[in-house]
Amino acid sequence: MIDPIEGGVTAPAGFKAASVHCGLKSDGASHDLAVLYSEYPTHSAAVFTTNDVKAAPVMWSTERVRADNLRAAVVNAGNANACTGARGLAATEQSARALADQLGLGADQIYVASTGIIGVPLPVEKIVAGVEAAVPNLSHSAAAGQEFARAIMTTDTMPKSVAFRFMVGKTEVHLGGAAKGSGMIAPNMATMLGFLTTDAVISRRALEAALRGSVENSFNRITVDGHTSTNDSVLLMANGAARNEPIEEGTQAFAAFCKVLNLVCLSLAKMIVRDGEGATKVIRVDVTGAGERQQATLAARAIANSPLVKAAANGGDPNWGRVISAAGYSGASLILDKARLWIGDLLVFENGMPAAVSTAEAAARMKGTDICFRLDLAMGSESDTFWTCDLSKEYVAINADYHT
Amino acid sequence: MIDPIEGGVTAPAGFKAASVHCGLKSDGASHDLAVLYSEYPTHSAAVFTTNDVKAAPVMWSTERVRADNLRAAVVNAGNANACTGARGLAATEQSARALADQLGLGADQIYVASTGIIGVPLPVEKIVAGVEAAVPNLSHSAAAGQEFARAIMTTDTMPKSVAFRFMVGKTEVHLGGAAKGSGMIAPNMATMLGFLTTDAVISRRALEAALRGSVENSFNRITVDGHTSTNDSVLLMANGAARNEPIEEGTQAFAAFCKVLNLVCLSLAKMIVRDGEGATKVIRVDVTGAGERQQATLAARAIANSPLVKAAANGGDPNWGRVISAAGYSGASLILDKARLWIGDLLVFENGMPAAVSTAEAAARMKGTDICFRLDLAMGSESDTFWTCDLSKEYVAINADYHT
Repeated sequence: MIDPIEGGVTAPAGFKAASVHCGLKSDGASHDLAVLYSEYPTHSAAVFTTNDVKAAPVMWSTERVRADNLRAAVVNAGNANACTGARGLAATEQSARALADQLGLGADQIYVASTGIIGVPLPVEKIVAGVEAAVPNLSHSAAAGQEFARAIMTTDTMPKSVAFRFMVGKTEVHLGGAAKGSGMIAPNMATMLGFLTTDAVISRRALEAALRGSVENSFNRITVDGHTSTNDSVLLMANGAARNEPIEEGTQAFAAFCKVLNLVCLSLAKMIVRDGEGATKVIRVDVTGAGERQQATLAARAIANSPLVKAAANGGDPNWGRVISAAGYSGASLILDKARLWIGDLLVFENGMPAAVSTAEAAARMKGTDICFRLDLAMGSESDTFWTCDLSKEYVAINADYHT
Repeated sequence: MIDPIEGGVTAPAGFKAASVHCGLKSDGASHDLAVLYSEYPTHSAAVFTTNDVKAAPVMWSTERVRADNLRAAVVNAGNANACTGARGLAATEQSARALADQLGLGADQIYVASTGIIGVPLPVEKIVAGVEAAVPNLSHSAAAGQEFARAIMTTDTMPKSVAFRFMVGKTEVHLGGAAKGSGMIAPNMATMLGFLTTDAVISRRALEAALRGSVENSFNRITVDGHTSTNDSVLLMANGAARNEPIEEGTQAFAAFCKVLNLVCLSLAKMIVRDGEGATKVIRVDVTGAGERQQATLAARAIANSPLVKAAANGGDPNWGRVISAAGYSGASLILDKARLWIGDLLVFENGMPAAVSTAEAAARMKGTDICFRLDLAMGSESDTFWTCDLSKEYVAINADYHT
């Protein structure tokens, strides 16, 4: 039994959330500060951006997760607090201290995440005031979970939230999550933030293994624009409130937990792609028949990152030569006479030349909101899948004057 | 003395060109087939796409250049003859044979290049008829050189042609070139074709060394969309008609030849970027202070390929955080506290944080048609430079329905 439920991050027992408008987003209404709190001690695991340029909150939170004593998180949208030097680090610490003081915790129990523009000092007094306004409203309600997902949005057009309940032995356990991300989305993470909560009892080691595996096949397999951000992070907190038998690696319970975690991460990742800046379509890129998985990964990533492939998808144009040629420069081993390419269920290329199908048949497979390219390398049995969105004029419009 | 002269590929003695409309471009008027002919035997050197998916003419011409017995080239726009299998190879050979028959040469003396859509069979009967119509019009005139540059265009909006005269000892020598390219432009090469001619007497070995060096710092340093094409090639033919003292590697004359060749290649490369699909601005990315050149190359390429950097340039938006963060994920060694970034002459980032300049000052450096980002890594003395263009709504419009 894996059932979808309401609430996102507040679906698991013992997790509360609240959000307010603290003044970082320029419109006077949208929430831009969110707090997440666990009533119980937690184990935590997290993954962070691979960008050498790391935002202040990423540096702070990396240390906090390592110490594994987290109880709460403070998240702001509208300012990334990246490339802001010592002043930025001090602002992160002040944000953590403000939330810790309100909750009677230590600052080192607070995870901090920021998203928004790079290189602008964070107006920390707004964060402090926002935290003070938010904490009294902390709630376990499903509405509070939904609001959390909405408050962390930047150029996102819709909140991204999901939760499931499932059984560990005879105990019902819950796992929920929220994410934001729309531009600067590239494999290995994205300008994306993810917050995952569970009331499962699970060892820290198992938690880390589960998160690593799930992120690799979800958030690390999506791309909007190939630009890896400075602020990416995904946090998974487990507070044990469900009182199930402890989950350890290698057990059936662990497999069940991973299955749901995969579902949560992949659901959120696909929501990010669907809400890619200016996106009108989701493009799934399957590469099969690779000799090694790395070969499939290289080819799928190059196809998903090609602006020409993405622009063709936007126009519903079955210009599959762009797909093949992207695989060709990807670094993956490719023997043209062996490779076969499908658009949806339609074989368009084999034996080194076009298959006998009409442009109209191919164009029909490019018209909907979901497009799938499948490239069979016919050199082995390994495969990989990436998801991306189309490249539209709106992407350019959004990014040509995000700053000013 | 290095003087610009008229004519492009026909500027050097003994080179003739002609072009016609053979019916590959859908409008009834534009020339889409061009022929280049040397009255004298030549030495040749060429570089080809690194894409594993190579078009039929690339496979054919690679062999012809290796044999070093070229006398002429036939070039078509409107169809890439890529992903077309054995039928595509036969079409290339037929094109070569048609031109050879007209000129009284062997088919193995003909270089073939194609550009246009991938995966559509080449209507070779149109090429054959076009060749027969073009050859009687072969001319050494400057106008014929200009027409050649125009006939090889696909989505280009302007022809790209340049030529210089210079002295080798006491002999006047000429070097000219034409190129096409607008989309699918990425380092290493592009959907670009380049044709370079010289009447210099130069050994084949020296010719190859000169071309390799010049291409590396020009055509391999430009990017429009990061998509390396299936058809890229640059050909350099030397027919010795100038009767100068033979040029050998390591001599003063070789240095002079390379200097002019660099000038020709870089001029053509910058024309390609300026004419990038939908481009309104040229962006120069200088990375200095690298410990090894490879580090500078990685950072400059990542910045030049970032759609977010390119979209910001389109909007004249001084969102320099995107530049720093692109360097951060590039794989280049970067110590944020050491790095400094300039937009034009304005220092915007140092000591890990924003410099004390106003957004208005920075925005002023983003307004013109030429933008320069300079990133100093402060870790050594190596550097590299890439050129790219901005990302505009027009890029998407052009590529959303190029096919249909």
